[in-house]
Amino acid sequence: MASRSTQILEAAARVIARRGVRGLRVEELAAEAGVSTATIYYYFKDRTGILRHTLEFINDRAERYTTDRDRDAEPLTPLEDLEQTLLLELQDTTEVRENSAAWGELRASAVFDEELREDLARATLVWIQEVAALLGQVQPMASAADLAAAGERLTALLEGLSMRWLSGGLKIDHARDLMRGAIDAELARLRQK
Amino acid sequence: MASRSTQILEAAARVIARRGVRGLRVEELAAEAGVSTATIYYYFKDRTGILRHTLEFINDRAERYTTDRDRDAEPLTPLEDLEQTLLLELQDTTEVRENSAAWGELRASAVFDEELREDLARATLVWIQEVAALLGQVQPMASAADLAAAGERLTALLEGLSMRWLSGGLKIDHARDLMRGAIDAELARLRQK
Repeated sequence: MASRSTQILEAAARVIARRGVRGLRVEELAAEAGVSTATIYYYFKDRTGILRHTLEFINDRAERYTTDRDRDAEPLTPLEDLEQTLLLELQDTTEVRENSAAWGELRASAVFDEELREDLARATLVWIQEVAALLGQVQPMASAADLAAAGERLTALLEGLSMRWLSGGLKIDHARDLMRGAIDAELARLRQK
Repeated sequence: MASRSTQILEAAARVIARRGVRGLRVEELAAEAGVSTATIYYYFKDRTGILRHTLEFINDRAERYTTDRDRDAEPLTPLEDLEQTLLLELQDTTEVRENSAAWGELRASAVFDEELREDLARATLVWIQEVAALLGQVQPMASAADLAAAGERLTALLEGLSMRWLSGGLKIDHARDLMRGAIDAELARLRQK
């Protein structure tokens, strides 16, 4: 069973995905999580504390759904590993949709609110480095700078495609095809250099 | 001198860039534009009318600052034309910053509000087609489908990079370098196909 604080963060991700960061009220979150507002303040101190921990929560959850695999499955090739990590962020499931919407909202609200910026920048950097490391498994001769730039582009593209998908302008299958094409284009460029 | 309606739309872009779509109140917009709320309702009917026309306004403005050039300047090569169109969206000027912030906000709010989706999808399509046509000038042998996919990726990447820039996680010069690298990667891929 999920701990009390996890239960609150799951509810926070749901509320943000449904109504946005700016629609998040502690009273509504308490009702959604089935706890008192006092409990929420006890665990997370204030609204910024809630948002910060929600960011951490959705990152951990993404880490899990993009990397968890059956222990008995064949090991992935480096290219499959890279593709899976990026493409599993583009799935039409409740969990991924919620995660993408909450991430997009935290990103968009950081334009106006400086409090989250540092946490968001750090989480983005970890993600870029993860993708750069996977690219390096496919193209071991590429320089660290080229791998990092490719990782920055692929993750920024994923954010751009997710927003188009969530705002209704792009079908999920087409988003996945575009992402595969981008991986292909970046690998072609790394080979040429 | 700007017409009354343009004056209101300029003010709307400023207010949205400063406080977000969800922070836009007609009273505040009236004060910013120096007109009465009745004047705003007269021109734009309701809040959705304001947002719709603001979207059109920022698109027209982007069209101007990405394509206007000195009549006596040397004509651009197709590659320069493509690069300029994309890179002029990544400039640290008041106009571009406001445009990018307003565009990002309209995109983010369309996740929760269906009213703007159609206009936004249409504006995105026009932009994709413009970039695909420029790519086609550089790589005339590429298929229409490949050019369209590359145009979709480059514009989605630009949206992703702009959001990172505006939310403070990415320097503008580095964003421009990443964009140049993406153009390079897409052209490399179009040549290979």
